[in-house]
Formats: sequence, C-alpha cells, structure tokens
Amino acid sequence: MLRVGMLTSGGDCQSLNATMRGIGKALFNYYGDKVEIIGFLDGYKGLMHNEYKELKAKDFSGILDEGGTILGTSRQPFKMMRVVEDGFDKVAAMKQTYKDHKLDCLCVLGGNGSQKTSALLKEEGLNVIGLPKTIDNDLWGTDMTFGFQSAVNIATDAIDCIHTTAASHSRVFIIEIMGHKVGQLPLHAGIAGGADIILLPEIPYDIEIVAKAIKKREEEGKHFTIIAMAEGALSKEDAKLKKKELEKRRVKTPASYDLANRILELTGQEVRVTVPGHTQRGGRPCPYDRVLSTRLGAAAAQLIIKGKYGYLVGVHNNEMVPVPLEDVAGKLKTVDPKCSMIKEAKLLGISFGDE
Amino acid sequence: MLRVGMLTSGGDCQSLNATMRGIGKALFNYYGDKVEIIGFLDGYKGLMHNEYKELKAKDFSGILDEGGTILGTSRQPFKMMRVVEDGFDKVAAMKQTYKDHKLDCLCVLGGNGSQKTSALLKEEGLNVIGLPKTIDNDLWGTDMTFGFQSAVNIATDAIDCIHTTAASHSRVFIIEIMGHKVGQLPLHAGIAGGADIILLPEIPYDIEIVAKAIKKREEEGKHFTIIAMAEGALSKEDAKLKKKELEKRRVKTPASYDLANRILELTGQEVRVTVPGHTQRGGRPCPYDRVLSTRLGAAAAQLIIKGKYGYLVGVHNNEMVPVPLEDVAGKLKTVDPKCSMIKEAKLLGISFGDE
Amino acid sequence: MLRVGMLTSGGDCQSLNATMRGIGKALFNYYGDKVEIIGFLDGYKGLMHNEYKELKAKDFSGILDEGGTILGTSRQPFKMMRVVEDGFDKVAAMKQTYKDHKLDCLCVLGGNGSQKTSALLKEEGLNVIGLPKTIDNDLWGTDMTFGFQSAVNIATDAIDCIHTTAASHSRVFIIEIMGHKVGQLPLHAGIAGGADIILLPEIPYDIEIVAKAIKKREEEGKHFTIIAMAEGALSKEDAKLKKKELEKRRVKTPASYDLANRILELTGQEVRVTVPGHTQRGGRPCPYDRVLSTRLGAAAAQLIIKGKYGYLVGVHNNEMVPVPLEDVAGKLKTVDPKCSMIKEAKLLGISFGDE
Amino acid sequence: MLRVGMLTSGGDCQSLNATMRGIGKALFNYYGDKVEIIGFLDGYKGLMHNEYKELKAKDFSGILDEGGTILGTSRQPFKMMRVVEDGFDKVAAMKQTYKDHKLDCLCVLGGNGSQKTSALLKEEGLNVIGLPKTIDNDLWGTDMTFGFQSAVNIATDAIDCIHTTAASHSRVFIIEIMGHKVGQLPLHAGIAGGADIILLPEIPYDIEIVAKAIKKREEEGKHFTIIAMAEGALSKEDAKLKKKELEKRRVKTPASYDLANRILELTGQEVRVTVPGHTQRGGRPCPYDRVLSTRLGAAAAQLIIKGKYGYLVGVHNNEMVPVPLEDVAGKLKTVDPKCSMIKEAKLLGISFGDE
Repeated sequence: MLRVGMLTSGGDCQSLNATMRGIGKALFNYYGDKVEIIGFLDGYKGLMHNEYKELKAKDFSGILDEGGTILGTSRQPFKMMRVVEDGFDKVAAMKQTYKDHKLDCLCVLGGNGSQKTSALLKEEGLNVIGLPKTIDNDLWGTDMTFGFQSAVNIATDAIDCIHTTAASHSRVFIIEIMGHKVGQLPLHAGIAGGADIILLPEIPYDIEIVAKAIKKREEEGKHFTIIAMAEGALSKEDAKLKKKELEKRRVKTPASYDLANRILELTGQEVRVTVPGHTQRGGRPCPYDRVLSTRLGAAAAQLIIKGKYGYLVGVHNNEMVPVPLEDVAGKLKTVDPKCSMIKEAKLLGISFGDE
Repeated sequence: MLRVGMLTSGGDCQSLNATMRGIGKALFNYYGDKVEIIGFLDGYKGLMHNEYKELKAKDFSGILDEGGTILGTSRQPFKMMRVVEDGFDKVAAMKQTYKDHKLDCLCVLGGNGSQKTSALLKEEGLNVIGLPKTIDNDLWGTDMTFGFQSAVNIATDAIDCIHTTAASHSRVFIIEIMGHKVGQLPLHAGIAGGADIILLPEIPYDIEIVAKAIKKREEEGKHFTIIAMAEGALSKEDAKLKKKELEKRRVKTPASYDLANRILELTGQEVRVTVPGHTQRGGRPCPYDRVLSTRLGAAAAQLIIKGKYGYLVGVHNNEMVPVPLEDVAGKLKTVDPKCSMIKEAKLLGISFGDE
Repeated sequence: MLRVGMLTSGGDCQSLNATMRGIGKALFNYYGDKVEIIGFLDGYKGLMHNEYKELKAKDFSGILDEGGTILGTSRQPFKMMRVVEDGFDKVAAMKQTYKDHKLDCLCVLGGNGSQKTSALLKEEGLNVIGLPKTIDNDLWGTDMTFGFQSAVNIATDAIDCIHTTAASHSRVFIIEIMGHKVGQLPLHAGIAGGADIILLPEIPYDIEIVAKAIKKREEEGKHFTIIAMAEGALSKEDAKLKKKELEKRRVKTPASYDLANRILELTGQEVRVTVPGHTQRGGRPCPYDRVLSTRLGAAAAQLIIKGKYGYLVGVHNNEMVPVPLEDVAGKLKTVDPKCSMIKEAKLLGISFGDE
Repeated sequence: MLRVGMLTSGGDCQSLNATMRGIGKALFNYYGDKVEIIGFLDGYKGLMHNEYKELKAKDFSGILDEGGTILGTSRQPFKMMRVVEDGFDKVAAMKQTYKDHKLDCLCVLGGNGSQKTSALLKEEGLNVIGLPKTIDNDLWGTDMTFGFQSAVNIATDAIDCIHTTAASHSRVFIIEIMGHKVGQLPLHAGIAGGADIILLPEIPYDIEIVAKAIKKREEEGKHFTIIAMAEGALSKEDAKLKKKELEKRRVKTPASYDLANRILELTGQEVRVTVPGHTQRGGRPCPYDRVLSTRLGAAAAQLIIKGKYGYLVGVHNNEMVPVPLEDVAGKLKTVDPKCSMIKEAKLLGISFGDE
C-alpha cells in the first residue's frame, strides 16, 4: 500500500483542485486500491496538527474547473523563521504526523514561501514533491506556474471594461493589479488589455515621466489614459525609502490612490481607481491552467511511481521536468527590465515610467 | 427629409451603442434615404456647442455588442441648475443648435439627471424622446433600464471570484458595488453572488448587527462571510449626519475601507476589500441588454414614425410604453425596504444589517 | 416535524440547483431542525422507485452557481400516457412513496410535461408545488422560466463568435438553436446576436423569401448573412406534412443541414452550419437566473410555510405569484407571430422568412 | 519613406487584428510619418488584384480585442498549385502590385498554406515576413500560433457546458472539435474539459475499444461519457481507405454523427452530438493570444527596422525568433502519439481509442 500526503499552502489561487485531481486520478488509475491519499487541511497547519481527511477516487471527480481548494489553505508557516513557537516545534510536529501516517511521500502545492518549507522538510528526510502554484509566476525553476494565466484573464477583463468607459469619458484610469515584488501579472495583463502605461515593482517610476506620458497622449488627441499598476509599484523616491517606513505610510488604502492624487496634481485630469483585488485569485481556472495542472499532476504521479523524490515539478519548453527543491527555495523570478518582452512593449510606445 | 438628433448623456454604460443601433437601423430601414441622423458628441455638450457627426447606416453596423458609446458622453449639465454660466445660456444654445440643424426630434439616451434636462427641453418646445440608460435601474417610469443587467453580471462575477478565495482562507470579504443613492445593483448582484450580508443606501445598517451576523456564521462553522456593500451604504449613525459632513470625511478612499476597519475592531477577523469600480459600467452588453436596447430603439423609431414626441420609452410588463418625460423627471426609483425581494432574501437568512 | 420532498424532472437546465438552494435555505432558516428534506433521484423515477437521499442544510451550500442538478433528472414519465406499464402502476407507486415518507408536500422543478404530471398528482390528493424550469420559456402562467436567460447567453455567444468569422469571409452561416415547438430562445438569441434572418417553429418560412433576403444583402454590399434557426423551424411545405412523415425524413442529422443545401442551391453561396446543441442547457446559471431561482425558491418556501399547496410559483410583473397547477398543465406559451417583439424586429429589417 | 504591405490569409481566426496592431503601432511609434502601410483586402486576392486600403495609425487603435480581421481574408490561392489559371499568372500579378506600390516588404499573417505561398514569393525576390496564424497550432517552426489558445477556450467552454448536462442525464456526448489533419486543439480542449475519450487524426481509433471504454465507465458507476473528437478523427478501418473515397462518403454531415450511430449500436446508450463548428475561429482573442500577437507584431517590426526579411516570426521558449520561410513551408507539426502530453493523459485514464 502506497501512502501519499497532499496539501495546498499559501495564498489560494485557481487550478489548485485541477492539480490535485491530476495527481489523484493518475495514482488511482495506476495503483487501483493499492494507494491511499491523505489530504491535510489548511496547508502546513493540517500537517502540524494532524488535521486531515482521506481522499478517495470520487473526491477528485468534478473538481477540474472548481476554484479554491477542497483542502483549504493557510499562509506558509515560517515567514519569520520561527520554527519553534511558544515551545511548539513545528518541524518536529510535521515529521511526526508524516511518520504517524506512514507516508511514502508528501505533495506540496505552493509558491515561493511554501516551497522553501518543502525544501526544509526534504532536508529533514521527508520525501517531498513540490507543485508550482502562484498567480505571480515568480517561482524559480519553472517557465510557468498554475494560476497565472487565470489571473491574467481576470485582470485583463477589468482593463477591458475600463477601456470602454475611459474612451467614452475623458479620464485617466488606474487599475491596481496584484504583484507585491514581482510584476509578471501586471505586465501581461497590461499588454493584453492595451494599457498605455505599465508600472512594475522592478522598474521604479518617475512621476514626472508618467505625467508627461499622459499629457503627450492628450496632445495627440487621445483623451484618456489607462495605467496598469502593480500593487507593489514604487516611485523612484519611494524606492529609496526603507521598506518599514513605507509600510507605515500605507496602512489601509491601496497605493493606487496615492498615485491618483499625484497625477491629479500634475496633470489636472480626472483620475479613477479600480482595485480588482482578491478577485484575481478566485474563480474557475482557465483551460490553459487546467491543461497545465493536469500535466503537472500526472508528472508528479510519474515521479511517485518511480520513487523519485525531492523535486519541484517544473515546466521547461513545454515539457514537465523535475527541479531539485533546494535549487528553487528562496529564489524569486522577477521581471528583468531589459528582457525582450519589455523591449517589445516599449517599441509599441507603452511607457514604464522610467524614460 | 426627416432629421433626427441623437446624444448619449451622463455616466456611460453598456448597451448605449446597441440602443442607438436600434433607432438607427429602424429609421434607415423604414425611411431609406429620406432620413438624416445627427449624432452630437459628448452628450449635451455637443448640442450646446454644435459638435456633431452625421451618422450613416453603416455607422450602426457591428456596434450591437460594443461597449462605450460611439458618440462619447459627459455629465449632464444642470446638476447645480446653473442654466446660465459665465454669461453662456446653455438652454438657448441647445435650442439654437436644434434649430440650425432643422431637427424634427432629438433622442436622448440618459439616466435621471439627463432625462430631467430632456424634460426641460420638451418644455422649451423641442421634440424629445428619452431612452432609459443607467446601470442603477433607478429611473422612474420603467421596469428596467439598459445597462443594469450587464452591470449585475460584472458585479456578480467579482463576488463569484471572491467566493472561492474566501472559502479557501477564512476571512471576511467586502465587495463595494456601485450605487450611491439606489441599491438595485448591489441587491441583485448580492443575491446572485450568494452574499451573506447586503448593505444598501436605502437600509441604514447597524454595525453591531453586521458584526453579530459574522460571528453567528463563525459559530455555525462557516469561516467566511461575503458582504456586498453599495458604495452609498451608510451606518445608522452616518445616516444621521449631514451629507456635506459625510463628504468631508471621505475624500479619497472608498467607504468600504472604513467598514473593514470597524469589522476588524468588532470581530477580530481579517477583512479584505474589493472595489470593482468603473468596470461595472464597462465592457460589452449582455444579451439581455442587447434585446432590451434593440426593442427600445425600435419603439423609439415607432414614436418618431408616428410623430409622437415628449416621451421616455419605458418597459412595462415586457411591453415598450411611452411615458411623458415630465412624469419621469426628478424622480428616483429606490429599493423599498419592505418589497417582496428583500423579504425573500431575508427568508433565506441574508442579513441587511437592520435587524 | 415538516417533511418536504423535492425532485427535478425533464431535460436538465441551468439554475436547477440554485432553485433547490432557495427552497432549502429558506426552509432550514425558518424551521431550523424542525424540517426534513427528501431529494428523489433522477426525477419522477426516484419517486416511483423510492430512490432518494436526505438533503441537509450543508447540501444546499455552494451550489448557487453550479450547473446540472444534484439530484439527477430523467424525462417525465407520461409522454405516451402509459400510466400503467407492464403491470406497474406509476401513479400508485408515487403515491405510496409519498405516503411512506410521510411527506407534507412535494416540490417539482420541471417544464411543461413535468408540471402536467404534477397537476395529475395534485388531483390524486398530493400536496404539490411546481417550479418553472425550462430553457424554452414556454410554460404557461409565468412571464419567465429559470434556465431561459442562461440559454440565451450561450446561444448568443455562438452567434457572436460566428459573426466575426462570417464578416471576415463572405458566407452564409446557420446557427441551429434549441426550440422544437416554441421559438422564444432563437428569437431572443437571434436579436441579441444581431442575426439577419430568424426562423421559428411558429412562423413557417418560405425558402424563396429566405434566399431573396440573402441576395438583397449581397446586393447592398453585405457579403455575409447570419441565420438563427430554431431546431423546429419548418418551411411552409414541410409545415403541411404530417409530423410522422417529417420524423421519418430526419433521422440522424439536424434540420439545419437540409436548409443549408437548399440555400446553396438557390443562392450559390457557401453555407456553414453550427449546432451548439446541448451546450445550451449546460454550464453555470447566469446572475439573472440565480436571482430568479432564489426568489422562486423563497416564494415556494413561503407557500409551504402557509400550507398553501397545488400551485406553480410563477412570475408576473416581477412579483412571485401562485398559479393553480391545473391551469398550467397541458398548455404551451408560444411566440405570437404578431407580438410587438416580432414587429420591432421586423422594423429593424430582420427577416422571418414569411414576407 | 518606408512602405510596408500587410495581408491576412486563409481561414480567419482570433487575434489577427491584435497582430496587425502590434506591427502597426510599433512601426508608427518608431518611424512616425516616415512609414506608409498598405493593407491588401481579402488575403492574397487583394495583392493579385491590387485591392487595398492605406492603414493609418488610428486604424490600429481599439482593435486589440476585436475578432475577425479588418482586412478580410480568403483561402490561400495555390492549393492545387495552379499558379497560372485561365491565363492569369497569379505570381506575376502579385509581384506587379508589390512593385507598383514600391513596397519595402510584405507582412503575411497566415497558416500552413499561406506561408507556403509566402516562401514562394520570397523565392521570387520579394521581402516577406510571415506571422504564424492558425487555431490548429500546426505550423512548423514555432511553439505556438496565435488563435490557438482562444480556440481552446471556446472548445473547452462547449465541453464544460456539456459536462453538467451529461452528468444530470446518463448519456454519451460527442463534441466535434476542429482539426482536420492535426489534433492539437481537440487534445488540449479535451484535457481542459475533462473528456473521458479523445479521438485525434493522428491516432486512428478502434471502435470496439471506444465502446469498451464507455462500458467500463458504466460498470464503475459513471453513467455518462464525454468524447472530444477531432473532425478529422478516423477509425482504423477508415484510416485505410483512400482519402477520395472517404470524402465521397461524407458529403454534408459531420463525421461525429457516424460515430454516434456506431456507439449506439455497440453500447445501446443514448448519444448526443454537439458541433461548435466555426464558433471556434470566432469571437474575441483571449489575453494569452493578445500578448502573443503584440509580441509577434513588435518582433516583426524589429525585423523590418533591421531590414531582415524572409522569415516567419516564431516563438521558441518564450522568445520571438526568426525562422527562414523555406524551412516552414510545406511542413506540418502534428501530434506525436508518443509525446509526453499523450502519455500524461493516458496515465490519468483518458482513452485515445487505440489500446
């Protein structure tokens, strides 16, 4: 009897269920009744406190296009590296649960932080397989993460809707798109939505250049401007401030409202703000993500069948490839300001507020 | 030669083009080359300053499902009743343009404010036909306005996306939905999206009752709560404050952030806010709106053919009916807190924060 | 203890789950643990053979926007009026199950045929409440049925997609839309999708007139024509043939292929056919249907609370109203060829193939 | 003054406009008023007969998400290699138009056949740049073609809708998906839609194996089966027949109806057929395609700026790369029955009817 653990960790996103379905369907199809799958609830929390439910073949039916996660999730537990908290040794607890269930391996669906933890568990001797989840597509070691294209669709829909209203009136619109440190999502949605200005965490912007770009459009007879702004986009001055100070300044309201006020000052134009927020993580996965998730799930099952553990299943050049978890942990795949995609966007006249 | 003017006024919304197409196609089909259509640009502004373009039959092709308005729009001009401004007599200017073009009539696609102006122009002797545009469905004299169902779709999509993410984590989510004075849109979208709490301008809420509803869900094992909140929803205390004072308090950030902080205080639960904002006015009209717009447009053409002017084309019991513009002007169709739809929602356990 | 039975009967459609959720949530919210709900499986079959599952409060959670039916469905059983079949008395069996479960009432979600059966059960002394399900909107006694607007959306999407491809090439496209006897769905989708020709079961078409309409467009420089055709649309000659003979002629392939060949003969134009088929019944209910279903469900619960049985819950002028089941049974709400909607469509130049 | 020609050729698809916009915006942004763009109408036809319109900067505005093509298209002209027809030398005519307009280069948006022609024009000394258009993703020399992901979305939507209806009733459903010779589209849509059986042109199916797979599901308590079938899928026997003979057998009705009848014979189950048909080519491009098209367009502009002609702009590993047109011409990128994606799908239990 093969015994496989499974959990979903970190901010939720689309296609978590599709990925688990891929693993589950492949394992039940291959092993029949010679496999048991244990789903831990609410991410690593469930593994620490041994909260779980057994997942049967039928639990994986009909969830291919369901949003959310049938297991629940929680933030990954070691943000502050407090591995022992109030006398409770988190790692030891997780190892104990793993041992109690006599698991052969553990599948972790998670992003950066969560895969850092899975690398740590690997170090501790557990058989772990990671699956690349995140709407940010910022995981090192894979071309693509599941959730990303679905989030691009939602963010682009928001820009599309704003486009018609912006064109009817004559205004500046800011759409604040998810992406604290990495701007893949606002970059893709900005291009797909035909944004005129795209502001990314990786490219600090000069507010004067932004205002100039708006005025230039006005002069050319284009009476509206669409700005796709990453929630983590920073002006050049702010980029110099220490992070702590910045956090103090922005307690409750989105950064986009600050930008809106600056633009109003500098251009005199009416500005409107839209914050799609957590809608970008929600809803049903798009077909692209469902194909990707199904393939990632099958590839994870293939690794389990071969007894090959300690890898993240990544995508390279449309093939599923195993990447050692220790290579993935702690790295971030940011947008290179000199990459060809940025160059191509600039060639079309899209401004990134930097030149 | 029949000469028809046309303009779109007020906040833009979906299905403006579909409605103009309805009028235009019907007129060209009936009159052939015996009709000329003048489209005034950017709402009443175009009529005042004689900015226009002639609309040919082919201009109405392919716009049935296009968002925005091919004519542009602007806020209706008499918000403060400043009919004469800086020596410029707006009404006289509009009458002059109407006369200069030798118009037989003028079609005004607009909401409350805009139809007030069209009633005024009727009084002044112009032949006006109103068409009921607004995402708020708050126009007196018609069961339904075009734009409303498309906006319900967008707002509901946002709640749907939040639903999966709310269920995966354990949080309170507020989705702030358009509706300053009238809550038809948040009421419909809230029910369609399965919101647990719906807060409307017409029903001042008690923050303690809202907090209690959230805690009750928590106790029943439901670890998340979805709140569909009209942008104009007010707590009972705020409802007592004078309007001016309220406006002072809320300069830049949406009301939903205030509510989020109050809930955090009272329940200790994590709260997240989503503001779909102007996306609710944008994008392509849904099929329902396209059918409605086509019918309204044809009905307006029928009135023109009969030479029957001075009416808003309204919908009653699925039939298009003319309603005298003076009956429509200055009235607002609000949500009656005792209507059957509210009762039905309450029977399901949806809280409106009032009891 | 109140005991309520529930079943979904006939061709499936969107919003069945939303309607059951409306009833269930309202009953559990009102009665708490003083109510039991029995869901019979696969329509009346489950009632005949006592196949069921108890539905708890949590079974109604999360199904508001799920397509299909959690109870399954089957064709309603008395198409041929074979009430007794192979010695098995269907009606007696259903009454026995009702009695065995000590039901206080039975909710039947179904269309024409199914409500005929529910009227029959009422006659036999059972307490029945009907809920108006059908994508055809052909149920007598209600302005609207749930499923209809969702189906309109899907059929319109198909026409929208065809529109861009038709405009790029120069072709005639036929989209065959559901509607055997009643053309509400093709009429609405045809108008919403901007079809040039709409063919309905209620208006037999003259193939020469159809061909002429296509040629006229060609002459006017419009190089494509979109035909929205009801699956039950008939040419004037076919309308004269006996039904049986017609069925013999069309065994396996959709009627639209016949029409395509006739058009090819008469106009020499390339014709393409699209058959969205059962997609029109499937997928998630649209927000409009979810609001309608929630309200219908709550209204059914109100009738149960009052002990008022034997009615279909219908919609009149946006209010939920009870209609005696015997008034509904056996009637069909067809499209009146002289209704204002047809006149409005004709005013725009849409051809129905009849003049 | 730089002079650039542009045309769209072959079956239309989504994102043609987005691609032309990419080229146009980049050229006007880079060259300002030092560039002229000539758009030839209806594909190579326009080039042969010198039918064109000049495209200005504003013609490329607002078309990013418009379906179809602003230039029109037609089948590529050399299917039968009849380069001279009725005394009209097509190639000479095209060269003459190119010369008359003093073009510096010609951008051809097209698939397999169209790029064969563009390679031929290159041979003849014209400066050609190809852009990879096709919903089939079967173009040699590029990982991805624009149109493909949008078509996957539409085909998957159809399967999604069928899924809920199939699960409610108990039936076999066939969805016939575009793909005459290459099955990329049905493969991706089949996996994304959770199809149980996928039939591709590249893998001739054994009808007995298909029937067995359906019966096996029945035995496991799964009362419905979804079959995603390529329009060019062939049974093993048919695969042996000569192509001509096959064409004779299938004049008017889709192949899926034949399959439906065979399944009915072999399993006794009710079968329903859905043919989304040309909807798969239509409608608005998805965000993925819009990003791809924008990048391809910018990359084409970069080649023009460098004066580097004779290439198809392909995608390799997410970078835009030039591929010599003669390497692309006449090749087809089919689905390898032994590729990892097929293996992954089979591991999940999806049947391809071959084993």
